[in-house]
Amino acid sequence: MLNFQQPTAVVDIEKVRKNIRRMKQRMDRAGVKFRPHFKTHQSSGIAEVFAREGIHSITVSSITMAHYFAKHGWNDITIAFPLNIREIDRIRALPQDTTPGLLISDAFTTEYPFPDDLLKKAVFWIELDTGHHRSGFPIADFVTLSAIIKRLDKTGAHLQGFLFHDGHTYPASTTEDISRIRFQTLALIAELKAFLNIKYPGRNFLFSGGDTPSCSLDLPMDGIDEMRPGNFVFYDLQQLALGACQPHDIALSVFCPVVASYPDQRRAIIYGGSIHLSKDKMSVDSQTIYGMVCSEKEQDSLHPYLPGRFPLVSSLSQEHGVITGSVEQIARLKPGNLARVIPVHSCLVVSNMPQLVSVDGMVFETMGMHSINF
Amino acid sequence: MLNFQQPTAVVDIEKVRKNIRRMKQRMDRAGVKFRPHFKTHQSSGIAEVFAREGIHSITVSSITMAHYFAKHGWNDITIAFPLNIREIDRIRALPQDTTPGLLISDAFTTEYPFPDDLLKKAVFWIELDTGHHRSGFPIADFVTLSAIIKRLDKTGAHLQGFLFHDGHTYPASTTEDISRIRFQTLALIAELKAFLNIKYPGRNFLFSGGDTPSCSLDLPMDGIDEMRPGNFVFYDLQQLALGACQPHDIALSVFCPVVASYPDQRRAIIYGGSIHLSKDKMSVDSQTIYGMVCSEKEQDSLHPYLPGRFPLVSSLSQEHGVITGSVEQIARLKPGNLARVIPVHSCLVVSNMPQLVSVDGMVFETMGMHSINF
Repeated sequence: MLNFQQPTAVVDIEKVRKNIRRMKQRMDRAGVKFRPHFKTHQSSGIAEVFAREGIHSITVSSITMAHYFAKHGWNDITIAFPLNIREIDRIRALPQDTTPGLLISDAFTTEYPFPDDLLKKAVFWIELDTGHHRSGFPIADFVTLSAIIKRLDKTGAHLQGFLFHDGHTYPASTTEDISRIRFQTLALIAELKAFLNIKYPGRNFLFSGGDTPSCSLDLPMDGIDEMRPGNFVFYDLQQLALGACQPHDIALSVFCPVVASYPDQRRAIIYGGSIHLSKDKMSVDSQTIYGMVCSEKEQDSLHPYLPGRFPLVSSLSQEHGVITGSVEQIARLKPGNLARVIPVHSCLVVSNMPQLVSVDGMVFETMGMHSINF
Repeated sequence: MLNFQQPTAVVDIEKVRKNIRRMKQRMDRAGVKFRPHFKTHQSSGIAEVFAREGIHSITVSSITMAHYFAKHGWNDITIAFPLNIREIDRIRALPQDTTPGLLISDAFTTEYPFPDDLLKKAVFWIELDTGHHRSGFPIADFVTLSAIIKRLDKTGAHLQGFLFHDGHTYPASTTEDISRIRFQTLALIAELKAFLNIKYPGRNFLFSGGDTPSCSLDLPMDGIDEMRPGNFVFYDLQQLALGACQPHDIALSVFCPVVASYPDQRRAIIYGGSIHLSKDKMSVDSQTIYGMVCSEKEQDSLHPYLPGRFPLVSSLSQEHGVITGSVEQIARLKPGNLARVIPVHSCLVVSNMPQLVSVDGMVFETMGMHSINF
């Protein structure tokens, strides 16, 4: 049945459903709104699985992606990327019934003369830097934050509140590190809220957070109103190594044809390179890897730090993947066979793929190259 | 004129033409056939520039790419990737007048029962491993090579000769290292030729090589019949660091909208992440970089090891690029501006892009997502 000729991303829809359900239940229990990030799957078909679980508010990472999901009937869409003023007209062109959530991530952007129809259509978030040090205003810089609120109020923008992404959980190495980051963030939010309560009494600012590593652990969410994890829908080796998921939770693999095999050199070549698997990598026993090869049966015993147990994707060229393993492992990878690769980072695999295929043969189109240009 | 809203790959066609012409002249002088690798540009429009320079034989890295260029009138196409027996029918489906060159890279593949029409249509190459240790037969293993020749002769395959790729020039750090690799390869070829002359007297085996780093230096090519460099058409930071090109030879840049700027933190954010620039990186003064920001005017003084002179792309998320630089450099990168990024690896940028745009506004469509699925 899995008779692929080329590298193909395969999803296990039952696992996808379980991952969504578990995360939704966690959010429901905490009374936190669940606004999953759809950049991980970029597919209207996978989006339907979310819809059936009662999810109607989403996050995307580009205006192009907002258009794609708006076209497929989603209308409550946060574009969790610093507002690109060069694309203002493309935001205005979103369907009438779409409410885009826009991020104000720096002071310069607030000086842009937002057109009236955009101010009516969109809601705005101020992006906070809680420690990731990518984009956003430092959360403890109350003076700047007050100036930005003032400036946005003047324009008539509908300010929802504050949005942050604890991306510094990704380079964490233990679940303890991840939970320390969550507690730090909650403390920083509490301080900002105390300030806001004094300065803007009676005004309600929402707080939107959410990275998969911290959302995958049962951590407190006090003071947070909504969460936006994305990767959890598929998980991957990186999340497994972080302790954010169990081996059986990983719902995405890439089936790659073996095209050459050298058992005596403990090496095989797959059709599956950086344009399929991406160059995202991780370190296992000081060896760099881009994926692990394991069958569906073996997956429950997948362990990122027992490298001898599974063949490894040890380097990538544009179309070639190099698999290393024991003589016996490589002997099982003959030309014509399919190697099932668990990727390091599922989001980047999907952004390379025009479609996802389910284990029972259903095809889910993705945005594909539309993720680049509209 | 360059009024891009989204990350856009821009080519300088005059530089492209100069790069092609210089390489063609070098091959002509040496009496070596020039069979450029088209995976770098993946565009029928850029292919036309090659055609106007008198080039009619090409290399591609996938069967999908062979179909794309066959559709655009190219018919002498080497598919420089281990023959994927799962795609045999797709090779047979290439247009009647196409001669695909196919690679035999391991012993198992020769056992496949090639259909007669494929044997009539295609020419075959035996892939040699000259030290890159990716795919191919060890060049000094005359016993195995003889067995493979025997096996191919038995099938009636039209064996052209031997193909290799000195990919180990890429991690080289100096032009001396690159030239040492070329001389090693020439010596290995000479030994194999001596063996072949005795074992198969009167029979002519061609030798096809070619990686951009070694082809960019004026090195001997004795015993080599054709060369297949690809990257030279655009070059990039990696090639500049290797000494394979001069700053003014680099013909590809990516224009990325600035979306947030934090001069006091010496950091700006561009719309341009790993799905645009790819995660290929290099090390500059022990700092990892994914690109350098420089204007067209400044490009002639671009130097990969003077990092203070230009802002650096220091990290990438899916859609975000983080630029670091001095306070003054970042102050010039305001939201709404375009940052002109010279990428680390131009091939991977292009494989992410649905089109290339010339500085004077011409649009060159690429294979785009077709590079993945046919």
